[in-house]
Amino acid sequence: MTDKNNYFIKISKYKVNPDTNVSLKDFETDYDGKNLNKDLAAEYLEETKEKMAIIQDELYAYNKYSVLIVFQAMDAAGKDSAVKHVLSGLNPAGVKVHSFKAPSANELERNYFWRHSIVLPQRGEIGIFNRSHYENVLVTKVHPEFLLKENLHDIKSLDDVTDKFWEKRYRQINDYERILFENGTLILKFFLHLSSKEQKKRFEERIENPKKNWKFSPADIEERKFWKDYQKAYEDALSKTSTEYAPWFIVPADTKWFTRLAISTIIINYMDMLKMSYPKVSEEILKKLNELKKQL
Amino acid sequence: MTDKNNYFIKISKYKVNPDTNVSLKDFETDYDGKNLNKDLAAEYLEETKEKMAIIQDELYAYNKYSVLIVFQAMDAAGKDSAVKHVLSGLNPAGVKVHSFKAPSANELERNYFWRHSIVLPQRGEIGIFNRSHYENVLVTKVHPEFLLKENLHDIKSLDDVTDKFWEKRYRQINDYERILFENGTLILKFFLHLSSKEQKKRFEERIENPKKNWKFSPADIEERKFWKDYQKAYEDALSKTSTEYAPWFIVPADTKWFTRLAISTIIINYMDMLKMSYPKVSEEILKKLNELKKQL
Repeated sequence: MTDKNNYFIKISKYKVNPDTNVSLKDFETDYDGKNLNKDLAAEYLEETKEKMAIIQDELYAYNKYSVLIVFQAMDAAGKDSAVKHVLSGLNPAGVKVHSFKAPSANELERNYFWRHSIVLPQRGEIGIFNRSHYENVLVTKVHPEFLLKENLHDIKSLDDVTDKFWEKRYRQINDYERILFENGTLILKFFLHLSSKEQKKRFEERIENPKKNWKFSPADIEERKFWKDYQKAYEDALSKTSTEYAPWFIVPADTKWFTRLAISTIIINYMDMLKMSYPKVSEEILKKLNELKKQL
Repeated sequence: MTDKNNYFIKISKYKVNPDTNVSLKDFETDYDGKNLNKDLAAEYLEETKEKMAIIQDELYAYNKYSVLIVFQAMDAAGKDSAVKHVLSGLNPAGVKVHSFKAPSANELERNYFWRHSIVLPQRGEIGIFNRSHYENVLVTKVHPEFLLKENLHDIKSLDDVTDKFWEKRYRQINDYERILFENGTLILKFFLHLSSKEQKKRFEERIENPKKNWKFSPADIEERKFWKDYQKAYEDALSKTSTEYAPWFIVPADTKWFTRLAISTIIINYMDMLKMSYPKVSEEILKKLNELKKQL
């Protein structure tokens, strides 16, 4: 990781080390440094986006790796905004965004990885999951009654939803992600860490501002009541599923300009580590190319 | 496993126990017992097929489990014939056969599980894989040069195709199958064990019999030259990937009537273990149903 790619973002501060017990209180929801401000961050963000576009071209030409970026967060934490502002500089031919809402009846007929598996990025592509397979240890952990509708052979009543059940799911997720990683998928997972206070503020804005009304649903208020349960579910998931091959990053989400720069900086640094090169053409083919050039 | 479902087939004789080193020489390629003959086996096969159809109805109504049956074998061992004769009694609405040939360019753009993952059986369904994800540790192990076309980030030359590489693939397959099993998929894997002598005989028949000509390809003769390499690749795969949650069965394949009965017997016994029941309707709904009946 070169200094020039850091933009005052200390990546290690946000990375969840494997096998640690995450307490979200220990992670900031807001930028607390002095080196950055909104204007500077905007300038840096443009730079990171240009770099990202260059690395994307290499990724596409190299055609051995794919990149999977996962966004998870509480409502109004800025997942959509991160996708829009951080990834908008990319060539859309090589980037696919998938937003996962409540699973359909058809999707529930398969194992919970299926609907994600079918849209995994191809080699050379960047795939963005706006919500992901993690909902199966988040929303379902807060609302275990959802599991009863999933036709699971081992969940006949809520009594079957034990710690052991969740441990199994965390392990399945790790095994699944390891298979992807070993077969060439760089996986970066972002939890946008929002404070309860800031969520309240953003909800109020969505109610008051006619241009933002569409973003608000009364169900959001209902889910906000489960804030503590969600924080706990996130803590468990972040603790159990941050691995060297698929790390989680807990990014402060109260200030959008910071969130965006942090995400962008992390992505370019990790993609940079893939150390790709444009496919080399053999001497022989190069000779032929030059001969063909004369015929132009 | 009840005696009445055994039809003189001793299942444990054909099951590969986890963590054993398989030597194919220790497994028969032909039926060596005295209790069965062609006519009796045909009669029993019909019985097993009837039972299978009944269990399939239960599987469909219960809608919590799916069944994945994998067939792997040398050419002319009878995979197609097993699919046709063993599974023809099933309701086609709930059974899907997928034959996997050489992967397409599009398929090679994803990890090697992808093309199999997208067609996994739904809850209540039986999925048949005629060849499978195992080809990635079989044909590619015999012909490692195929790996060079797969755009793998860790295989730049044949020197990279090490024992460690294969170990990783075996582990990936086990992890993958465990996820499926834990989420309700019963996995049964059959290796149809054919002798070299019998393959020769069947190839000759395919060349001599005009009705069988279409089944023969000159490439089959080429592959036959790699017989020993294939046997070794199968031994490795069978040793490393037979698990309690996804067992392999090595079924003698020199005599087709025996192969079919053995496969059918194993399938009904394992499906029987799922102990499914038709979904129960509550007292309340039953009462309503009876009221509605009066309106007919």
